[in-house]
Amino acid sequence: MTASARVEAILADLTLDEKLAQLVGYWVDQGGEVVAPMAGEMVASTRYEDATTHGIGHLTRVYGTRPVDPVERAAWLWNEQRRLRTQTRPGIPAIVHEECLTGLAAWKAATFPTPLAWGAAFDPDLVAEMGRAIGASMRQLGIHQGLAPVLDVIRDPRWGRVDECIAEDPYVVGTIGTAYVRGLQDAGVHATLKHFVGYSASQAGRNHAPVHAGPREIADVFLPPFEMAVRDGGARSVMNSYTDLDGIPVASSRELLTGLLRETWGFDGVVVSDYFSVAFLQTMHGVAGDLGEAAALALAAGLDVELPTGDAFTAPLAAAVRDGRVDIALVDTAVRRVLTQKEELGLLDETFETAPTSIDLDTPAHRDIARRLAEESVVLLTNHGALPLGDEDGMRIAVVGPNADAAEALMGCYSFANHVLAHHPGHALGFEIPSVLAALRDEMPRAGITVRAGCDATGDDRCGFPDAVRAAGSADAVVVVVGDRAGLFGRGTVGEGNDVESLDLPGVQRELVEALVTTGTPVVMVVLSGRPYALDWAVDGPLRPAAVVQAFFPGEEGGAAIAGVLSGRVVPSGRLPVSLPRSAGAQPYSYLHPRLGGASEITSADSTPTLPFGYGLSYTTFVRSGLRADAVVDAGASFTASVTVANTGTRTADDVVQLYGRDVVGSVARPVAQLLAYQRVTLAPGESAVVDFVVPTTRLAFTGRGGARIVEPGTVELWVGGSCVDRETETSLEIVGAVHPVTASDERLARATVRTAVG
Amino acid sequence: MTASARVEAILADLTLDEKLAQLVGYWVDQGGEVVAPMAGEMVASTRYEDATTHGIGHLTRVYGTRPVDPVERAAWLWNEQRRLRTQTRPGIPAIVHEECLTGLAAWKAATFPTPLAWGAAFDPDLVAEMGRAIGASMRQLGIHQGLAPVLDVIRDPRWGRVDECIAEDPYVVGTIGTAYVRGLQDAGVHATLKHFVGYSASQAGRNHAPVHAGPREIADVFLPPFEMAVRDGGARSVMNSYTDLDGIPVASSRELLTGLLRETWGFDGVVVSDYFSVAFLQTMHGVAGDLGEAAALALAAGLDVELPTGDAFTAPLAAAVRDGRVDIALVDTAVRRVLTQKEELGLLDETFETAPTSIDLDTPAHRDIARRLAEESVVLLTNHGALPLGDEDGMRIAVVGPNADAAEALMGCYSFANHVLAHHPGHALGFEIPSVLAALRDEMPRAGITVRAGCDATGDDRCGFPDAVRAAGSADAVVVVVGDRAGLFGRGTVGEGNDVESLDLPGVQRELVEALVTTGTPVVMVVLSGRPYALDWAVDGPLRPAAVVQAFFPGEEGGAAIAGVLSGRVVPSGRLPVSLPRSAGAQPYSYLHPRLGGASEITSADSTPTLPFGYGLSYTTFVRSGLRADAVVDAGASFTASVTVANTGTRTADDVVQLYGRDVVGSVARPVAQLLAYQRVTLAPGESAVVDFVVPTTRLAFTGRGGARIVEPGTVELWVGGSCVDRETETSLEIVGAVHPVTASDERLARATVRTAVG
Repeated sequence: MTASARVEAILADLTLDEKLAQLVGYWVDQGGEVVAPMAGEMVASTRYEDATTHGIGHLTRVYGTRPVDPVERAAWLWNEQRRLRTQTRPGIPAIVHEECLTGLAAWKAATFPTPLAWGAAFDPDLVAEMGRAIGASMRQLGIHQGLAPVLDVIRDPRWGRVDECIAEDPYVVGTIGTAYVRGLQDAGVHATLKHFVGYSASQAGRNHAPVHAGPREIADVFLPPFEMAVRDGGARSVMNSYTDLDGIPVASSRELLTGLLRETWGFDGVVVSDYFSVAFLQTMHGVAGDLGEAAALALAAGLDVELPTGDAFTAPLAAAVRDGRVDIALVDTAVRRVLTQKEELGLLDETFETAPTSIDLDTPAHRDIARRLAEESVVLLTNHGALPLGDEDGMRIAVVGPNADAAEALMGCYSFANHVLAHHPGHALGFEIPSVLAALRDEMPRAGITVRAGCDATGDDRCGFPDAVRAAGSADAVVVVVGDRAGLFGRGTVGEGNDVESLDLPGVQRELVEALVTTGTPVVMVVLSGRPYALDWAVDGPLRPAAVVQAFFPGEEGGAAIAGVLSGRVVPSGRLPVSLPRSAGAQPYSYLHPRLGGASEITSADSTPTLPFGYGLSYTTFVRSGLRADAVVDAGASFTASVTVANTGTRTADDVVQLYGRDVVGSVARPVAQLLAYQRVTLAPGESAVVDFVVPTTRLAFTGRGGARIVEPGTVELWVGGSCVDRETETSLEIVGAVHPVTASDERLARATVRTAVG
Repeated sequence: MTASARVEAILADLTLDEKLAQLVGYWVDQGGEVVAPMAGEMVASTRYEDATTHGIGHLTRVYGTRPVDPVERAAWLWNEQRRLRTQTRPGIPAIVHEECLTGLAAWKAATFPTPLAWGAAFDPDLVAEMGRAIGASMRQLGIHQGLAPVLDVIRDPRWGRVDECIAEDPYVVGTIGTAYVRGLQDAGVHATLKHFVGYSASQAGRNHAPVHAGPREIADVFLPPFEMAVRDGGARSVMNSYTDLDGIPVASSRELLTGLLRETWGFDGVVVSDYFSVAFLQTMHGVAGDLGEAAALALAAGLDVELPTGDAFTAPLAAAVRDGRVDIALVDTAVRRVLTQKEELGLLDETFETAPTSIDLDTPAHRDIARRLAEESVVLLTNHGALPLGDEDGMRIAVVGPNADAAEALMGCYSFANHVLAHHPGHALGFEIPSVLAALRDEMPRAGITVRAGCDATGDDRCGFPDAVRAAGSADAVVVVVGDRAGLFGRGTVGEGNDVESLDLPGVQRELVEALVTTGTPVVMVVLSGRPYALDWAVDGPLRPAAVVQAFFPGEEGGAAIAGVLSGRVVPSGRLPVSLPRSAGAQPYSYLHPRLGGASEITSADSTPTLPFGYGLSYTTFVRSGLRADAVVDAGASFTASVTVANTGTRTADDVVQLYGRDVVGSVARPVAQLLAYQRVTLAPGESAVVDFVVPTTRLAFTGRGGARIVEPGTVELWVGGSCVDRETETSLEIVGAVHPVTASDERLARATVRTAVG
């Protein structure tokens, strides 16, 4: 990175304390107290006024810490930025960062579907649109950086943070995640790629636990989404993973944070620490003896900014610099990056004259995006004729289950409501989010709806069962809404820190559903969850419901989207972005496994998922046929594959056309299936489309025995179908020529392009 | 390796076909048919006569394929060796290899405890004695190579082959495994180290599944036992692991099979393939397009001999050599190794004049070793006053459970009885192995014993419950014997291919035990198993038995050992060689975890085992006190730690003194506990012993960031106690000086030495 002359001039004038102040964030609350609700022990004791004496790099979650009116808070912020500009010697405003994973995590802001729902929608353009809307809201509020997207590739559904992730497939994560980056940054807000890298493979799905992975798995599974978002998406910031990889905490890895990220990929933005993770080098990983050592390790690795406080990067790092243990040049490099980011953001010139006096963070435009994404994300898992319910006059529907009338069950762990507001009981949500029940009442006004909770989301209280069963027995249909409540660290059933050793539905929810099924009334089970659960019993057990609908926290319009699917107004088109698992004891599992990673005759432990990656039903029927591909292609070049998709049913609907490939023989073990490209297509009844995929062979690249990523010649099987295991139409091609070493420009091309001709 | 002039002369005279014949085994049965019971699809079709036209390298399981009388079979073998010597042009006898994991796997041979019981006994000398006895039997029968020991470090109890492994700790595996190697080889039989390397970390415990591990974990956890057995034990053969490590099938890894094993460690013996694993490079791993490519890959990697047949290394490899794809020099290298091994074994001179005419493979000496090892291996997990039962006249004991009168439940998967004889119903076992019931009747002749099965080991048939409960209700004590049946690939509940996704006791056995407990009669639960199960309910649940005894398949004298523990004649002294797990969904887990691999405030998923590594109760009480260690030690040198152990109870008994350490701050994440040394000590009541450990600091070596194994300066916490988490007496020491790079001679010294003074 070459810093501007202006940045160099500022840097040359800063004292050590002023430099270090630029390298830290401070978590300020309205009253000026430092707060750190996530990790009690890590609460810093320094008062804000003291901490900002020399300026400050970042302000942490100005809007996202308590329910505060955005306009009031903006007034505080503008004032504060003016103070930093005029009352501190360096005169440099702070970067304001916020969480924005399901929308801006602030009071009254729109709550969009959780990332796992983005994955289910398979629609990067819509995610980019959402990113632009989120970014626009943030910019209005003077926020410069958003701590999203999460690009961790799902490897184990036991992990509590699965709802923050997009998919089990690196290409889906990379394309959709990059779309979010582009959207957010188009609006002028810097995206932060999380969590670089490997976090999702934490041992047994336990948060922060060690990652057992070799360099090939890291390079071929975990890194590609980050590389796409850096090289193609131009992401401006990256956040480290909390975990260690094979013993090396990422926050201390120069190989990853500098060698790979900057020197190989050319990233020239800012690396920020995941909250408290610099101190964790001492307290959790034991690779540093004190905070000064922790700071030195992190800084040398290439971590520029300590968030959310300055525990290690202020006094301890200052001491280390002063006694010669840390080279000031390392500090200067990090400060140069922060100042350059501030220059890019216009912060070196901004004067903060006029704070916004009114703001709407949940406009009709926001809600329209939230609605469309929610509708595209609902996955119909089974349907034995029960859906759609239709809208027959006088139809009696029993709406049951702990999530039926729970708006909070529509939102992910990083929504403001579940992340922050849950800790402030009594506050209004600040925006509209109709529950499934409320939405059903709107959707089906001519139906007679009765409501019973049946049970709570957790616990073993079955005393509501008899009443729920009675209501079911006298209804024409039952809609039972089950699943998760997202929360943090022990509050809720999924979300950060809420890892599990069982993938059964929490509490007695399965028992409730089975009790309802025994009434003989058709039961539609809706799962609102943040992870895929073991639903074999619901898919093909003796007490299976008549239909199963899976929605991953679909956000403020999610209730309406589900109601629309149930009534038939919306034709479901989501596809599973993650395998529906068999059991916790069968984990970890990924569809991207080589032959021996799946079921085989040499193990009695069958890992075959209940339903495969890419699966999802519709109210219409699609026939995919006539897959054709180039017969041969040079290693490193692109090939064309073309398939016809026909809507042979009676409803206009979307299909997600999925092109899979398998490299039959490789120099290392290769997966039995790999998504090469995908495209969402809308077709009217009787209509068909020809989808032409142009696929770089670099989509099939992998890390060879020599350690470099290569494309090898050989046969590739190709297929298109209703999931990764459905070879509805298939062909093959030969990659020919010499082994092709992947280059940086190849990586930019590693995204398939699609032309769709509907006819 | 420098081959002798004689070997070179033989090699120079061999045709290509004759060379390749030396590189393969053949699985001959009595009738001359090739059989391969393990994997139906892999049965070779070549008849034995054709396959040995050019000689043969190995004969596979001459005694261990069907129940055949050893003397008759020896006559066939001697005759066959003479035929190879005189009727084939090369005139070279075959190496005869057999399985010998729990004793020679042949009809009528002694069956010793399974390796997991060796681990529980913590007694390398006794294992060496057993190895010598096994080797002597094998030598008598003309067997030259034994396919044992298994040195895989346990990482996941879901894996079916856990019963073949020694422990969860690499040092325990290395010391006990090396003892076995020495014993076997002292008797003139070459040991084969299995499975090099990483097999036990197969994904989710699924047999052959990919291993997700980085080079540091491989170097610091999986490799040390192999290095000890090669460098210290002088093992003459090594067998590859079936798995791939981070995508590279080990059978194709030159880095491991040649670079590390031969070039770094100096191994100069023969690498043999695990059965069918050369072909698996094509059929399972997909890294070879055909058998010729598979052979070429394996041979180039350093795999010398294809077992148990010649699917890849005969015709396909011959074609590859003839058309120039494989350099004949690679073939020559492997043949040179095989011929050198035959020379070492005396096979180039042996004339096979006189086959043995009588043989006893289960002598009183065998049985005495089997008894002692079984007695030392029984682990008392809980005892709420129920044990010992004593031998009161007329005591009424209800003996219940599917494993109470099941001799097969005393034997591991690789015992002849469970591995082979189970496939030949109707055959007598051929040796004595009293069940727990039979042994109890011998042990307690004055007791009134009633017997009820209660249920089967598997299935959900509860119809035997009422009768068992009635018997329990009218008894003074209940002994319920539950657990596993070892078998292969779907037969049995544990053993090769019998991997699980639940760690609950199989079938309805837990329900049976809990039903018995509700009678109010004291219930002693004996678990005969090949893996640790999730027994939290039995250890501290509301329906816990009054005592729990864990025996890992204790062999032919195991019933008597358990009866002795129950009666009180034997004081239990086994210690858990593996954590008693919480659940399948909490796996993988190892006690050797860094802080974040265990329970923490940042995950709701608690992985804490029900009982920790090293745990086990006694009928006496031990107090460990006064741990002292050198204050400082140079990195690379050894330190002394001394502890006093006192028998403060009323019975003469053994303690296993366990010295643990923790490297507080390391340059990479370090485990919270690591067994540094251990010693079994016998003490009379009131007696105490001072145990002096001399521990090389290289026991604390690990792979640093640079990739080399090092000893770092820093503080090491030390403790001794009743398990890895019990700091009954503790101290610390400082490792000082420069970082010490571990050298080959360090590794030879990395074993702690112990002096015990009993007073």
